[in-house]
Amino acid sequence: MRNTGPDSPGITRLYPSFKVLEGKEAVYQDLEFPDPEEPGDRDLPFVYINMVSSIDGKVAVSGKSGAIGSDVDRSTMRELRSLSDAVMVGSGTLRAEKVSLTSEGRRRPEPLAIVVSSSLDVPLKENLKDAEKDRTVVITTERSLKNSKPEDLDEISSRARVLAAPEKKSSGGTVDLREALGLLGSGYGVRRLLAEGGPGLNYELISSGVARELFLTLSPQILAGEPERSLNIVSGRLLERDARARLISLHQADGELFLRYSLADSSG
Amino acid sequence: MRNTGPDSPGITRLYPSFKVLEGKEAVYQDLEFPDPEEPGDRDLPFVYINMVSSIDGKVAVSGKSGAIGSDVDRSTMRELRSLSDAVMVGSGTLRAEKVSLTSEGRRRPEPLAIVVSSSLDVPLKENLKDAEKDRTVVITTERSLKNSKPEDLDEISSRARVLAAPEKKSSGGTVDLREALGLLGSGYGVRRLLAEGGPGLNYELISSGVARELFLTLSPQILAGEPERSLNIVSGRLLERDARARLISLHQADGELFLRYSLADSSG
Repeated sequence: MRNTGPDSPGITRLYPSFKVLEGKEAVYQDLEFPDPEEPGDRDLPFVYINMVSSIDGKVAVSGKSGAIGSDVDRSTMRELRSLSDAVMVGSGTLRAEKVSLTSEGRRRPEPLAIVVSSSLDVPLKENLKDAEKDRTVVITTERSLKNSKPEDLDEISSRARVLAAPEKKSSGGTVDLREALGLLGSGYGVRRLLAEGGPGLNYELISSGVARELFLTLSPQILAGEPERSLNIVSGRLLERDARARLISLHQADGELFLRYSLADSSG
Repeated sequence: MRNTGPDSPGITRLYPSFKVLEGKEAVYQDLEFPDPEEPGDRDLPFVYINMVSSIDGKVAVSGKSGAIGSDVDRSTMRELRSLSDAVMVGSGTLRAEKVSLTSEGRRRPEPLAIVVSSSLDVPLKENLKDAEKDRTVVITTERSLKNSKPEDLDEISSRARVLAAPEKKSSGGTVDLREALGLLGSGYGVRRLLAEGGPGLNYELISSGVARELFLTLSPQILAGEPERSLNIVSGRLLERDARARLISLHQADGELFLRYSLADSSG
């Protein structure tokens, strides 16, 4: 049940200092990212991740992200999209459910919609809503292009631009995301990129050191779900102990928490 | 890397109101629980859960809870134990690694150490540290007592009191925790009980409506780990949508967050 009483003055920032966000419907409406000209990988876009999870760490159960997150979370998600040149998801996320990657008009043109797939099993027609061909990019590998059926490739090409990126070394044919991001930067003008999962894509972005920030909404609910059917925000080989994050800010709205972390420490 | 600069004034409460906890080494040193005489299940202990997880929702990877959580978290864990008459873990947690369930002298006598097992596969000798026979209770079922080997039962009985509780209906022989808690209340004087996992025990306590509060430490690190080898704070059949939690308070120390939730909504 939503608390709309006097204890619930909309969105408040709790950290690093207290502030009531008067009349705002989304967190981060005044967000500032680090200057992209600062030292770092100048040729790579600034990559940030946004996810919503239950208290018990679930982003989806049985493949569906379902009803996790409030209206403020959904509005905040669109706000974060409006700050990016491109919104990226893994193909597993697209196969699991219908998604729209737009900012709903908060940014014009809308950010590029980017789907990463090393298999080209990407149901654009069925599951990618509100997409335009010129604003949709499917990133895959040369090998996958060669191995795909012509009719499948025709179908994808009728709905998206297809970008072939190198394979990650000793990865069994997955896309080298660092290389792919470089191509998005140089060829598509992408300076900021928002990734929205799934856990495998997030893992690649974090473990390779290209993800700079993580935005996490912690929804005040417990989902449970069996481990083999539950997704967390990051899944992959155990990360080293130095994969620490630094809390940048923390907002609260009706018991829902909006966490912003810097992942700079894990990129070294 | 720990931030010990001027931005890190020890522990601060961020919600419901801002307060610096001067000179405290643990959160919740002034904690007050609801009066146990208030309406509710008067015969059942007040049950609260305490867990620590990484940002990506992992409490353990490959069976080990390892290095998740700071010194403040460990001190807070002991503080929460000192407020309980009994500290309960599931037998899977005991099998996974060595544990001590004491408050390290903050409460005298120490809380009862309680292990729940429907199989009596409980390596007390190997993995339960700092335990005294009179302050250790193994809760199991009559069926499990009948099926166990006499030498195994002798070994357990030499290290703990054994309490047989009814089986949960249509559960395949697991302990009925509501009944067990009633026995702990009436026979052992337990008015408050702290549960510390694993995810299966937490699930039983939450889904049956007996868990009243959840304390969660969110450690500023990303663990990753493969789903089949990772544990979250709660695992079991998907909970209903009304398993919502209410944020009671939120503290911060060096980027680590200490969340306290009421689970009252999920007990109805």
